[in-house]
Amino acid sequence: MLSFESDYTGGAHESVLRRLIETNGEILPGYGTDAYCRSAAQKIREACGCPEAEVYFLTGGTQTNQLILDAMLQPYEGVIAAESGHINTHEAGAIERTGHKVLTLSQREGKLDAGELEWFLKRFQEDENREHMVFPGMVYLTWPTEYGTIYSAAELAAISGICRKYGIALYLDGARLGYGLAAEGADLTLPDIARLCDVFYIGGTKVGALCGEAVVFPRGNAPSHFMTRVKQHGALLAKGRLLGVQFDALFTDQLYFTISAHAVEMAKRLKRGLRERGYRFYLESPTNQQFVILENGEWERLRTQVALSFWEKADQDHTIVRFATSWATAESDLEALWRILDQKS
Amino acid sequence: MLSFESDYTGGAHESVLRRLIETNGEILPGYGTDAYCRSAAQKIREACGCPEAEVYFLTGGTQTNQLILDAMLQPYEGVIAAESGHINTHEAGAIERTGHKVLTLSQREGKLDAGELEWFLKRFQEDENREHMVFPGMVYLTWPTEYGTIYSAAELAAISGICRKYGIALYLDGARLGYGLAAEGADLTLPDIARLCDVFYIGGTKVGALCGEAVVFPRGNAPSHFMTRVKQHGALLAKGRLLGVQFDALFTDQLYFTISAHAVEMAKRLKRGLRERGYRFYLESPTNQQFVILENGEWERLRTQVALSFWEKADQDHTIVRFATSWATAESDLEALWRILDQKS
Amino acid sequence: MLSFESDYTGGAHESVLRRLIETNGEILPGYGTDAYCRSAAQKIREACGCPEAEVYFLTGGTQTNQLILDAMLQPYEGVIAAESGHINTHEAGAIERTGHKVLTLSQREGKLDAGELEWFLKRFQEDENREHMVFPGMVYLTWPTEYGTIYSAAELAAISGICRKYGIALYLDGARLGYGLAAEGADLTLPDIARLCDVFYIGGTKVGALCGEAVVFPRGNAPSHFMTRVKQHGALLAKGRLLGVQFDALFTDQLYFTISAHAVEMAKRLKRGLRERGYRFYLESPTNQQFVILENGEWERLRTQVALSFWEKADQDHTIVRFATSWATAESDLEALWRILDQKS
Amino acid sequence: MLSFESDYTGGAHESVLRRLIETNGEILPGYGTDAYCRSAAQKIREACGCPEAEVYFLTGGTQTNQLILDAMLQPYEGVIAAESGHINTHEAGAIERTGHKVLTLSQREGKLDAGELEWFLKRFQEDENREHMVFPGMVYLTWPTEYGTIYSAAELAAISGICRKYGIALYLDGARLGYGLAAEGADLTLPDIARLCDVFYIGGTKVGALCGEAVVFPRGNAPSHFMTRVKQHGALLAKGRLLGVQFDALFTDQLYFTISAHAVEMAKRLKRGLRERGYRFYLESPTNQQFVILENGEWERLRTQVALSFWEKADQDHTIVRFATSWATAESDLEALWRILDQKS
Repeated sequence: MLSFESDYTGGAHESVLRRLIETNGEILPGYGTDAYCRSAAQKIREACGCPEAEVYFLTGGTQTNQLILDAMLQPYEGVIAAESGHINTHEAGAIERTGHKVLTLSQREGKLDAGELEWFLKRFQEDENREHMVFPGMVYLTWPTEYGTIYSAAELAAISGICRKYGIALYLDGARLGYGLAAEGADLTLPDIARLCDVFYIGGTKVGALCGEAVVFPRGNAPSHFMTRVKQHGALLAKGRLLGVQFDALFTDQLYFTISAHAVEMAKRLKRGLRERGYRFYLESPTNQQFVILENGEWERLRTQVALSFWEKADQDHTIVRFATSWATAESDLEALWRILDQKS
Repeated sequence: MLSFESDYTGGAHESVLRRLIETNGEILPGYGTDAYCRSAAQKIREACGCPEAEVYFLTGGTQTNQLILDAMLQPYEGVIAAESGHINTHEAGAIERTGHKVLTLSQREGKLDAGELEWFLKRFQEDENREHMVFPGMVYLTWPTEYGTIYSAAELAAISGICRKYGIALYLDGARLGYGLAAEGADLTLPDIARLCDVFYIGGTKVGALCGEAVVFPRGNAPSHFMTRVKQHGALLAKGRLLGVQFDALFTDQLYFTISAHAVEMAKRLKRGLRERGYRFYLESPTNQQFVILENGEWERLRTQVALSFWEKADQDHTIVRFATSWATAESDLEALWRILDQKS
Repeated sequence: MLSFESDYTGGAHESVLRRLIETNGEILPGYGTDAYCRSAAQKIREACGCPEAEVYFLTGGTQTNQLILDAMLQPYEGVIAAESGHINTHEAGAIERTGHKVLTLSQREGKLDAGELEWFLKRFQEDENREHMVFPGMVYLTWPTEYGTIYSAAELAAISGICRKYGIALYLDGARLGYGLAAEGADLTLPDIARLCDVFYIGGTKVGALCGEAVVFPRGNAPSHFMTRVKQHGALLAKGRLLGVQFDALFTDQLYFTISAHAVEMAKRLKRGLRERGYRFYLESPTNQQFVILENGEWERLRTQVALSFWEKADQDHTIVRFATSWATAESDLEALWRILDQKS
Repeated sequence: MLSFESDYTGGAHESVLRRLIETNGEILPGYGTDAYCRSAAQKIREACGCPEAEVYFLTGGTQTNQLILDAMLQPYEGVIAAESGHINTHEAGAIERTGHKVLTLSQREGKLDAGELEWFLKRFQEDENREHMVFPGMVYLTWPTEYGTIYSAAELAAISGICRKYGIALYLDGARLGYGLAAEGADLTLPDIARLCDVFYIGGTKVGALCGEAVVFPRGNAPSHFMTRVKQHGALLAKGRLLGVQFDALFTDQLYFTISAHAVEMAKRLKRGLRERGYRFYLESPTNQQFVILENGEWERLRTQVALSFWEKADQDHTIVRFATSWATAESDLEALWRILDQKS
């Protein structure tokens, strides 16, 4: 069935797969100590403009969020997130399982507001009962957000400035980082992100890898014995090569950026075609995820012909549905979609 | 200094203290297996009209909340609470430390709304991504609430009905239970609470004991090996008698109810006197806690003469301040307060 | 460099890799709901003779141990293991991080003794202080063990019988399961294991996969909402296909068993060759891991020419070193080893 | 019934109780910020010769162990203890529940051996797989031990020296500290302990208080925001005065030391009387706990007349039984015991 369900329904990008095949016969040491992990880390350091960065490879997004937050927060600290943040909604309580509270602020198009953040931190400092409360220890944000939107350079700089003023860390969840960098109107680069954040990850699973996320501590600021903590979380692959080889491929010849740009271009055409057909968007997204409001009956009919993601109920009669493109989306997929939509009416 | 700071600034009620003195020389077995714990449990069963209830004694409120939630929730479940709920605001993340998320609903005068609760549970059941989410496993509410208000019998019955319909437990945090039972307009009795809830606790620390809370599982429904879990939480007193003797005294000759009624009567006079002097209340509370909105300057002056609790900022220029009475509040305390307030102007 | 360092230094078996290549272009739903996961599960059910088994795929061994123990133990329960058990020695405290104690019994050649197990359980039952102790809730064993040895059918049956008598679960960590099944003298089959154990996993990472372990609950006895718990542990892959495709390949045409037998055959020749050259074995292992005692100086010289694993110090002057074969070990590897060893003298 | 069951079966020492009565009417701020907590802390600082010490009051021993270990260990660290250590045997897994492994060394009369400790730490440092293991982060010992024995000044100094050499903390569990200080042959003082350890607690529950343990960080080295962590563990009493008043009494006029000495004197007479009657001791204890080996039948008969503690099975036919004296033991208790023992034969 035709699918715009998500950006993780395909396999690996062919260049990634090819490198897995080419290196398959090599004997390599385990646990991320192989030459491909080292090479990939070096290429990422270069792409980030951070010669001192420490880079670790993990298998998935929830695992990465759980590990970073648990390793960087003090036990009496929580993490600030938008109420729509992935860690607050769709990670089955993985953060709380490590003992940390998610402190929520309101969201606007999936984004935190710098003003509200500062108000929250200031109010905490002034609260006479604060020793009985969860200390805010970090800000978590997604880029692009769960709604496909992106923070501008000015917005991220404002949040980063507040974090530094109040002495808390800034963490950017980049599960779809490539699609943000390639977005029309995006004015943030990888080196900008590395400069403004204290830790972030470059998503692989949703951008051409079979699995894998690259965690970057841009100023060599990984928590002590981080590898042991990865192991303790059950997140250390014996064959770390699986991740190293893939990220080495993704950061060779700009592959990560090229395939991200393709997905965004496909999303642009998708958006245009949907708009021409009169579809109503939940919000304006410049990345590979597009959110459309469908009348419930239409949604039930449409899903029998094309795989899409249920997002949430808009109201009693309408559902918000996600269309996602990816590096693998072809022009022919769009054409097939138009055929379905046009015949439908 | 004159104090209306809280209901835990005094020692023990004299009848409670007397029993501690009278029994001090007895040799008693440890860990809650003594005759006073048994006797207190029996008196509580009778007061609750629950011959099958299991009763455990713990030392404090946060400990009790943490233990009950951790023992009764499945690891993939969270607890629903009002955003103003004590577990969500002033317990330093004690619930999350046990691995459970607090799922917040809005509050109105400190109370959950049955309609919103049902909407939340229904929406969860219909969410196609619910296996990636925290399962709601219990409803937590405080009675009286953090704002001194109380649910009516109809309100609690509505919430209880929804919990049963959706198969989740209802837990009532009764840190100040006595003050709720004695409140003007309260139409809930201890047997009502026992019938409507799956677990609750009768607060001692704030109602005449030196320390201690009595946990009641009204239908003998304590989690298996609950005593071992108490121990594992570091919550088992070697000299369990300390708790048993106190609760035995509190539930002898209606002491718990009598001293609660006294505190509420004092609060009524306090409210009247403040109102006569033109003070503005944040909301209408029928129990021993009264919340007054003061201009910041007045608050700073007043606190040098009478101990009160900072509650929260109302706005830039005003602060919400709590006056609390207790079983120990005397008519002379009120008179002293009036002198301070009247001379001030 | 020539390597007998471990069984996870190669890539994937070529048949496994081929299936990854062949299926790469398919669009498949995420989180383990794809057709390959279903097919692999079905083949595993058949191989285990358990039509009602529930099968889940995870990425690595520590993750699997952590998740199974955490999901199956009650919070007040610990897991019994040999003091040499992987969870007790080389998992960085991953089990304790989930809140459970590892209760250790002595080991003999890596194995638990049924008699000691029964003595331990009986003593616990009779201990008057047992409510202050960690309850034994499960037995953990590895098959083959950390020392390459295997329990016989009679030994496993004895342990299984004791577990059932005392009402606790039996869990078999099969990180190297294939090598045990193929061992000379092994009298246990996959259906035997499924019948005697309450849960076990079939290791993929060390037996031909790039990553992956298949958890089997033989009687459909997975803990409730297990998938949500996988997610909560950060262990759910978005592209679950990566695991499904690999296990589908491993359980097609007996591949898992064939490649395991090859590794064991190579180990037999390795053992013979080492013995002919006068090497001293730490113990007798019938599987793919062989433990040799080297004088420290020899170990330091040898490791410059062939990759081996440090195991532990035998005494001040000697080191126990592991040689491991795998599905990828070739006759030519053995010949290269002999050249190194023979030239050395 | 006559009881030598334990040192926590009585109430409070009369001087402690008297101070609770005398201060009961005072209005005092909560959560350990009252004048009695301050005064008690100051007296303890003086008794320890540590003007910079930070002192916190908690309610019980397991709670204290759990909190100190959790707050002082890094998440990837475990605590070294004798296999007979209380945290390893009789705390229901409270330490593991906080995510930390108890790393056990052998015990001799309840004590750790400095030589074995150093061997363990050295072996860890040299282990090539140590990044996959639990890091030793602290040494836990009890003084007196679970068997009533005490480390000499030389023994404790040796252990302390090793801890400092290897950069790990030393923690002394002083649940019965007074009885150790008063023991015949004890050559350690409170200032010695403060100098040699990084943290310890002075037990109150077993030495004259109704409840309470005083945690001492001798060089002002409490973990950051320790009070918030106490709250997060559910261990913060609203009426902190309950603990402050009691410790203020215990450290006034040498009460703590005087009543400890009385218990030890009673134990000396107990030991003499039992020995005269031919009883066999499990080991030689100089403190208030005495361990006697009884034939099972005798144990069953004796326990119907005098409360004693089951300790463990010595063998099939014999049981090790504990006799404990306390500050409350009277000469008449001993006489009653002799009557029972003498009539029996």
